[in-house]
Amino acid sequence: MRYTFLGPAGTFTETALLAVPEVATSERFPSNSVPGALNAVRAGDADAAMVPIENSVEGGVTATLDAIALDNSLRIVREILVPIQFVLVAREHISLENITKISTHTHAWAQVRAWAEQRVPDAEYIPGPSTAGAALGLLTEHPPYDAAICAPAVAKTHPELKVLEENIGDNKHAVTRFVLVAKNPEIPAATGADKTTLAIPLPEDRPGALLELLEQFSTRGINLSRIESRPTGAFLGSYFFSVDIDGHIYDARVRDALRGLHRVSPDIQFLGSYPRADSRPTNIDPIHNEDSFDAARAWVETLFPQGRPENLQH
Amino acid sequence: MRYTFLGPAGTFTETALLAVPEVATSERFPSNSVPGALNAVRAGDADAAMVPIENSVEGGVTATLDAIALDNSLRIVREILVPIQFVLVAREHISLENITKISTHTHAWAQVRAWAEQRVPDAEYIPGPSTAGAALGLLTEHPPYDAAICAPAVAKTHPELKVLEENIGDNKHAVTRFVLVAKNPEIPAATGADKTTLAIPLPEDRPGALLELLEQFSTRGINLSRIESRPTGAFLGSYFFSVDIDGHIYDARVRDALRGLHRVSPDIQFLGSYPRADSRPTNIDPIHNEDSFDAARAWVETLFPQGRPENLQH
Amino acid sequence: MRYTFLGPAGTFTETALLAVPEVATSERFPSNSVPGALNAVRAGDADAAMVPIENSVEGGVTATLDAIALDNSLRIVREILVPIQFVLVAREHISLENITKISTHTHAWAQVRAWAEQRVPDAEYIPGPSTAGAALGLLTEHPPYDAAICAPAVAKTHPELKVLEENIGDNKHAVTRFVLVAKNPEIPAATGADKTTLAIPLPEDRPGALLELLEQFSTRGINLSRIESRPTGAFLGSYFFSVDIDGHIYDARVRDALRGLHRVSPDIQFLGSYPRADSRPTNIDPIHNEDSFDAARAWVETLFPQGRPENLQH
Amino acid sequence: MRYTFLGPAGTFTETALLAVPEVATSERFPSNSVPGALNAVRAGDADAAMVPIENSVEGGVTATLDAIALDNSLRIVREILVPIQFVLVAREHISLENITKISTHTHAWAQVRAWAEQRVPDAEYIPGPSTAGAALGLLTEHPPYDAAICAPAVAKTHPELKVLEENIGDNKHAVTRFVLVAKNPEIPAATGADKTTLAIPLPEDRPGALLELLEQFSTRGINLSRIESRPTGAFLGSYFFSVDIDGHIYDARVRDALRGLHRVSPDIQFLGSYPRADSRPTNIDPIHNEDSFDAARAWVETLFPQGRPENLQH
Repeated sequence: MRYTFLGPAGTFTETALLAVPEVATSERFPSNSVPGALNAVRAGDADAAMVPIENSVEGGVTATLDAIALDNSLRIVREILVPIQFVLVAREHISLENITKISTHTHAWAQVRAWAEQRVPDAEYIPGPSTAGAALGLLTEHPPYDAAICAPAVAKTHPELKVLEENIGDNKHAVTRFVLVAKNPEIPAATGADKTTLAIPLPEDRPGALLELLEQFSTRGINLSRIESRPTGAFLGSYFFSVDIDGHIYDARVRDALRGLHRVSPDIQFLGSYPRADSRPTNIDPIHNEDSFDAARAWVETLFPQGRPENLQH
Repeated sequence: MRYTFLGPAGTFTETALLAVPEVATSERFPSNSVPGALNAVRAGDADAAMVPIENSVEGGVTATLDAIALDNSLRIVREILVPIQFVLVAREHISLENITKISTHTHAWAQVRAWAEQRVPDAEYIPGPSTAGAALGLLTEHPPYDAAICAPAVAKTHPELKVLEENIGDNKHAVTRFVLVAKNPEIPAATGADKTTLAIPLPEDRPGALLELLEQFSTRGINLSRIESRPTGAFLGSYFFSVDIDGHIYDARVRDALRGLHRVSPDIQFLGSYPRADSRPTNIDPIHNEDSFDAARAWVETLFPQGRPENLQH
Repeated sequence: MRYTFLGPAGTFTETALLAVPEVATSERFPSNSVPGALNAVRAGDADAAMVPIENSVEGGVTATLDAIALDNSLRIVREILVPIQFVLVAREHISLENITKISTHTHAWAQVRAWAEQRVPDAEYIPGPSTAGAALGLLTEHPPYDAAICAPAVAKTHPELKVLEENIGDNKHAVTRFVLVAKNPEIPAATGADKTTLAIPLPEDRPGALLELLEQFSTRGINLSRIESRPTGAFLGSYFFSVDIDGHIYDARVRDALRGLHRVSPDIQFLGSYPRADSRPTNIDPIHNEDSFDAARAWVETLFPQGRPENLQH
Repeated sequence: MRYTFLGPAGTFTETALLAVPEVATSERFPSNSVPGALNAVRAGDADAAMVPIENSVEGGVTATLDAIALDNSLRIVREILVPIQFVLVAREHISLENITKISTHTHAWAQVRAWAEQRVPDAEYIPGPSTAGAALGLLTEHPPYDAAICAPAVAKTHPELKVLEENIGDNKHAVTRFVLVAKNPEIPAATGADKTTLAIPLPEDRPGALLELLEQFSTRGINLSRIESRPTGAFLGSYFFSVDIDGHIYDARVRDALRGLHRVSPDIQFLGSYPRADSRPTNIDPIHNEDSFDAARAWVETLFPQGRPENLQH
């Protein structure tokens, strides 16, 4: 197996990938963007890609939400949660008031904003390609900034980088959710503690369409654990919704909801069913469990005493 | 074929039965109550029974709504609409001010109430077993009333009855809906202008259950043309709903709704799909038509690239 | 105070009236029909009328539901629950197999049907004007039936009537709900365990109107304890709904729901707020309580820093 | 009046600001970030700030959505739509194959991705602080990249920049929506073609809360023209929704919806009512118009014949 991840080495994404047991004995290589990592899977250059999908502070990772839904070949097979901590690094042990320019990834900068305003209020922010990239940039000949913000892992593997401050994130409980994405994979077995990810375009010609879509979940007792709107790009107000629901496509209520959603929004995409990182079992009202769906189906069959007409397939 | 109907001869129910073409060449006999007529069908003494189900003035015929749902053997196969007109009859041409007692069926009395207050304000009302029964009672030796209210047909077939006033119903557009009920019949073919009748107990332990039930229709674009609540008799507040919907069990959206309803209320009863008396075609939003249901089902099948696991039957 | 009730003396309705403490020291007189009793109140001949509104076996008392909503002058001020028991009476101690004709009110007959099929299967049913009326008919010179079914109270007050069988109702827990109706009365104080009765026409030109109406309750956390559909009489499919909700018009969430209902169905009628007979307090989700409504209103006021424009009244 | 905008000069945001008539005769100055621009307004250094809020390709501008909702002092008073076009610029007329590094703002890069893959597939992307900033960076002594992508306006005002390609955006109809934000301003007059912007936290302890919130709009016939979820930062799955609705706080249905929303989610924020940039009038179902709200309110007042108790304020 070959794995890729949003690189370079030392990013939180690599940390997430290393949390997958099989990875230790496999090959892995960094990609320089989320679309790049996913395209490597599409092209067969990698068997799976680890990419960030959601951050508790910054929200959905839009590059992932958009790129994963580009075609129907990719599916999520696993999710990993990684607590996010940031350190401030430089080439030397300089004092904070001497820092005039700091670089890091935009998302990381957003997560240390309060710290920055208090500790380095006069430093200019220089956008970096990634947290690790910004840190490694300090090791080039004439770095265009004095300090960088990155994951502790990067500092550990590069002793040339001096840690000026630790744990500088504004939110000490920040966590990022990563997903492992493969091409036409086998669907992971249902565990009773699963999630299913969908991309659902909002039909433009149906006022109240969002309510119609949400009712497909609520009438089957399905809980949404994440919902994000993303523009389709066609025009202002043209959306699709990226949604995580509690449940697995092997659950009758989920398949039934998928059919209902497809009627309202035929371009819906199924992006995978996979075990929850936190293993918390899904609560199911008895009227929505397998027995209830089976009984309902069996009952309707009994309503055709002379047999069901041939052209009624289901 | 043997038909029965809510008798005696001359009631509006017989008029409804005679509107069925096959009846002209068949045997028919009156039953003395709605439960009696339906039990005759259950017992095999009749092949079908014509009974009133709904009156535009008096509402649902509760005896029919209750008796038809007693077990799962009976189904509606046809509906007939009969305009309702009433005549006042007596044995002689007496003047209205000489009438001291009038008899008719309770439902009929309710429909001439305004006329009675104006024309015979001092007459006492004597409940009769049926409109025809009250009229024929006038022909017995010592009838305990002076006049009766009945269908024009009764007066026509009994010239001994003198018509004192015609068309005395308060609502000139009154109409009663009758249904032909058979035992485990073949389901009539779908016509595109059909109704389906259901009896749906309201689950007592689910607050909001009525909304849950109605959403099973609304999320599939199904219109309700009639809804009546009836007590189950268990205790105050224990109901079932008698419901007519636009559509046929051969329509995918109806079968899908039946499954959804069964999950919420497993004791739901299917009481028949049959052509509408007015032949008005059902409007179907494209997202709820057969193609849309077929496409949704086909799409979900494509989500199992390695084939659907054996234990997932649908 | 003068009270009227659905007579004659000895009916269950009189029992209900006697359960009202003030009645013992007041004048009371029977009316011969529900509309008659209510019209006596409208005309000022009585200060209040006791009428049945709902039976746990037979359902809503349609005469009451229709007559009470005829205009806007009447309001329910109290509800009384009366357990219903039936006795079989005759002039002499005859044996059951000698009974050929039995009379009682139609509703009562429906409630002893199973008993009758088993104990007097061959007896003919003669409709009576009321349970008490049927019983007292036995005391006339040539009664056209041998036995009658009535309340135990009637037998007790008329020793000439012999009780052949007691407690013959099919449902031993049968109960009838009666309401005391007055003309433009003061609204009874809120107790925290109240009901409000409404008559709500179903707007015909709005598909989905029933769902729209029910959502006015559900979005404010209001529970429906009774819902009955009644024809308006205009045409088949033209309904109004008679509804009881948990709560009092002095509750902010109820007034707010009334406003929402009026927008959807402007001919809605308010038929009274009154204490529940069972004194069971209403459960209120905190988001729907008085504080929550007050806070919401106060918040919107703060949104006008330059003061609210004059033409915005609320 | 002093205006600020997301700078530097030459950004699309400045174009948006210049579309406001009053700006021509006022002072304006750039801010180097969205939070910076909004804080300038909060601090009184500017009377209003123009910031981007939504892009038809990239979606919501999360910095704006988050920063505007930080406290309750800021309100949107105007919206401006600007068509987005991009040009490729360099210091000299070099050929595209010689470009090894390109800089621009991340959002802009996302909008030329398809063009880049086809025309400069091997060029490395260098994140820039803004489109104008990236372009102006080319004019420094040793720019760390060869070309930049920016608005046509920047190229026009800096003839030292050579335009290598025009109109390179992937979506030729791309448009960005900007909003003018002021501190505790007067609410702009209602025009009949208005929007209202809200920030609504999703209550975590209420399953189905999103449906509850959306029903507050749907039961009052209010259309949502934009909905975006944003993390509150507290933990994964903790959201607020940034929402635009059709209507003005001077509309009764909007105030009523605000009250309903406040009950479900008391930390809701009102971020302004303002005229639509496209002047398209809002369609209002008659049951939700001013007359309908007035009539409903007036009707409830009539239900208190003895006058409304003092403690019932509304």
